[in-house]
Amino acid sequence: MRQAGRYLPEYRQTREQAKDFLDFCYTPELAIEATLQPLRRFDLDAAIIFSDILVVPQALGRKVWFVEGGGPKLTPLSDPADVEQLDPARLNDHLAPVYEAIRQVRAQLKPPVTLIGFAGAPWTLAAYMIEGGSSRDWAGARLFALTYPKAFTCLLNCLADAVADHLINQVQAGAQVLQLFDSWAGAIPAVDFTATCLEPTRRLVARVHATAPDVPIIGFPRGVGPAYETYVRQTGISGVSIDQGLSPAWAAQVLQPHVTVQGNLDPMRLVAGGVVLDQAVDAITECLAGGPFIFNLGHGVVPQTPPDHVARVIARVHGMSHFDHRS
Amino acid sequence: MRQAGRYLPEYRQTREQAKDFLDFCYTPELAIEATLQPLRRFDLDAAIIFSDILVVPQALGRKVWFVEGGGPKLTPLSDPADVEQLDPARLNDHLAPVYEAIRQVRAQLKPPVTLIGFAGAPWTLAAYMIEGGSSRDWAGARLFALTYPKAFTCLLNCLADAVADHLINQVQAGAQVLQLFDSWAGAIPAVDFTATCLEPTRRLVARVHATAPDVPIIGFPRGVGPAYETYVRQTGISGVSIDQGLSPAWAAQVLQPHVTVQGNLDPMRLVAGGVVLDQAVDAITECLAGGPFIFNLGHGVVPQTPPDHVARVIARVHGMSHFDHRS
Repeated sequence: MRQAGRYLPEYRQTREQAKDFLDFCYTPELAIEATLQPLRRFDLDAAIIFSDILVVPQALGRKVWFVEGGGPKLTPLSDPADVEQLDPARLNDHLAPVYEAIRQVRAQLKPPVTLIGFAGAPWTLAAYMIEGGSSRDWAGARLFALTYPKAFTCLLNCLADAVADHLINQVQAGAQVLQLFDSWAGAIPAVDFTATCLEPTRRLVARVHATAPDVPIIGFPRGVGPAYETYVRQTGISGVSIDQGLSPAWAAQVLQPHVTVQGNLDPMRLVAGGVVLDQAVDAITECLAGGPFIFNLGHGVVPQTPPDHVARVIARVHGMSHFDHRS
Repeated sequence: MRQAGRYLPEYRQTREQAKDFLDFCYTPELAIEATLQPLRRFDLDAAIIFSDILVVPQALGRKVWFVEGGGPKLTPLSDPADVEQLDPARLNDHLAPVYEAIRQVRAQLKPPVTLIGFAGAPWTLAAYMIEGGSSRDWAGARLFALTYPKAFTCLLNCLADAVADHLINQVQAGAQVLQLFDSWAGAIPAVDFTATCLEPTRRLVARVHATAPDVPIIGFPRGVGPAYETYVRQTGISGVSIDQGLSPAWAAQVLQPHVTVQGNLDPMRLVAGGVVLDQAVDAITECLAGGPFIFNLGHGVVPQTPPDHVARVIARVHGMSHFDHRS
């Protein structure tokens, strides 16, 4: 999950120096500062580059902007002609500031702190591009897929390749682990799951691994329930993030035999703090620390989170005897 | 799922006769008309009473209103004192128009058409009451639960009992099957699932069955993924609705040995129509028609649905040789 954010006063100060959110992402010195701020405060085992998943649609030629307090907006992609106009030729140049930030962050990190790069998965990016912003049920994107099946497949393939290239570039700039956020995978009907999530993800992972065979990719098909099992078995990913709705006991039994499991503290427990926070941390680690496991949240840190609660969780996890946090 | 709705022109006409949505629900002649409209058009096996899940919070004394196009609004329940003020004493009187509509609809239905009553599940109602309306992630309701655990348990218990009484009253008025909509169960963190969903549901089901032991209750814990299994094993429900994100093959294997499974056509396929609709109908019935099964959608009919597509699905399901739709 993103480590930087409005819950940190120093982040809010840095944010004010950028004219808008995308300017923040594309200005290396600001992105570097936001990436490193959580590491100055907390004893973290990894850093995640400060960026946004919507830089890829923008690199392909779509208009993207952020409304203060209203989330992302895009010019909606409304028919097959819009898909044909997507142009990956400018991707490397457009995203050069992200790679520059990664290079400089990597140079400043002290091993064994690991640098994580990331991108949005094809379906989640396609959903934003078609809807023109966030949506409760992504009905417009689902209807587009049924109305223009060929164009939709083209869109997913185009995104799979562009996202793979963006991830490869991040590895070449210094990212050591990659995360793939399929934040709205839970909105995909079961009947479409293979074509809409599994296939594009498998294509993307194969393309990354063809160039960077050893880099671990952690997938996050948020909210897909039992289909998490198919996802870890069929996409080629090395690790999986689980949302806070998924039982860690189920994940330990069904997913952990195949991949590393990352998760899944409820971010609202991080707001609440105290005993309810400690109990939730303990319950998750008891279920998952017997196998390959990365302690994390089940979703992003919310703005009202007291930073002290983050420090409390990290100290608690690092103090646990039953797993070695640096291995 | 609700059968009436804006996709039917006759519904939109009836809707205009009510001054607002709740007036529509509480005026028996209008609710009866909306309930019967889909049965005049389509060869349906059941009718579902036209009402809304938020009539129960209103019956307990909370303010509820609907903003045209903006969904439901409630005065937010913000602290334990608000929970203490909930008053179930007026429930029977407040909801009398719903029961009157059920009595009259039942008298007009020709067997074997079945009349279904329904209510919202405790967590889903609590979530609306605390947030004061709909929410993307129900963060406010989740934080309330962690901040005021005793008051939150009281709230769930109060709702479980009030909802049970509302369902019993519906049976006594003529409802033959009951549905329990836990539409936002997918937002409950796994660590809280037993206390927030399973326990209140079990309490409610036991209370209904103490008075009406033979009435089937179909639960719909939308979006809970693998936890559907615990739900069907531990709540005492007789049937379960599955959302379109859940694989029917998984449901056939894991859920159908315990309960009747209802679902789970993607409502957007009903908009698209044609071959993609037929294929999805066939795929679901092939997975589930080998056991106790009710064909249905995975979520509500959307307003842009052509009524002809609904007729097409019903004809297709009724024409299938491998299950007897009247049994």
